[in-house]
Amino acid sequence: MPELAEELRFDDQGLIPAVVQDAANGDVLMVAWMNQEAVQRTLESGRTWFWSRSRKELWRKGDTSGNVQHVHEVRFDCDGDTLLVKVTQEGAACHTGERTCFYRAMEAS
Amino acid sequence: MPELAEELRFDDQGLIPAVVQDAANGDVLMVAWMNQEAVQRTLESGRTWFWSRSRKELWRKGDTSGNVQHVHEVRFDCDGDTLLVKVTQEGAACHTGERTCFYRAMEAS
Repeated sequence: MPELAEELRFDDQGLIPAVVQDAANGDVLMVAWMNQEAVQRTLESGRTWFWSRSRKELWRKGDTSGNVQHVHEVRFDCDGDTLLVKVTQEGAACHTGERTCFYRAMEAS
Repeated sequence: MPELAEELRFDDQGLIPAVVQDAANGDVLMVAWMNQEAVQRTLESGRTWFWSRSRKELWRKGDTSGNVQHVHEVRFDCDGDTLLVKVTQEGAACHTGERTCFYRAMEAS
């Protein structure tokens, strides 16, 4: 584990949110959760690993869908409680088939 | 409150994470938390409102620092548990004075 990982602050469930951004065009693709093991595997393998809160297991993006994310860079914020992962996205990031999970906009009231 | 807000899923503390992105260049500036009131005020006012988990109060970005965020758009993800807020950022987004909170990168081990 890199030394900088000591600066990360996981929540009381041992998780940290990871914002996944398309390295090519800057689109925010998805937000998912990592535990320490997922961070370590992501850094070591260059593929994104997450913790599924519903299934309570580690998963590697693309293993089921084929929509692999290749990691360019992992950044962390000023207070160490959020990650920003820049990737090359193969195919769609969203399970709906949309390129990004943020395909809907709210309207001001 | 817009109808679409019914599609939002707040966590068991009534909060939803909001990724704030620079509308001009796509940089991810910060991630903070909103409750329903913060979402409503953000949509109505065109300024970003958040819930401070440490101070347990609503705050409007820029009121203390002057670093105001003007909202272009609020998007939400496929499962409705994360927001993406595109803004014009005045000055720095980060309390450290950096333009973005994600000014540090982790290195692969």
